[in-house]
Amino acid sequence: MCEANVYLTTGAPEEEPELYLASVDEIIPEGDGVWKLTSIFGEQKHLAGEIIGMSLVDHRIFFRRLEENPA
Amino acid sequence: MCEANVYLTTGAPEEEPELYLASVDEIIPEGDGVWKLTSIFGEQKHLAGEIIGMSLVDHRIFFRRLEENPA
Repeated sequence: MCEANVYLTTGAPEEEPELYLASVDEIIPEGDGVWKLTSIFGEQKHLAGEIIGMSLVDHRIFFRRLEENPA
Repeated sequence: MCEANVYLTTGAPEEEPELYLASVDEIIPEGDGVWKLTSIFGEQKHLAGEIIGMSLVDHRIFFRRLEENPA
């Protein structure tokens, strides 16, 4: 199976990325920076952020979380 | 190997997505909607567009190409 783990990070080099959802199959944008993630087990989570990198062979996708109070 | 094929589509239901780059490993945003794609064979292409969906188990990632003359 070619799912990937989705991590949150600020992109800082010393930071350990935080696992947000494991074994993700589908990633769909829903607008306003929100993404719907669905794992191979059917678990769904919504994430407000931007993709900062993917390494599919390593099963890793990195998001930077958007500020929660942008206004 | 868990690479994916990257397709271009407008998202219209009757449209057949166009294969843009096969066997993609890394996808990195470079700003202004431009993404650097690197295949498992080392081939690199740059794409100006937005992700409209990923189905990793199916090895498929879909982009909508940005307008080339946004003024």
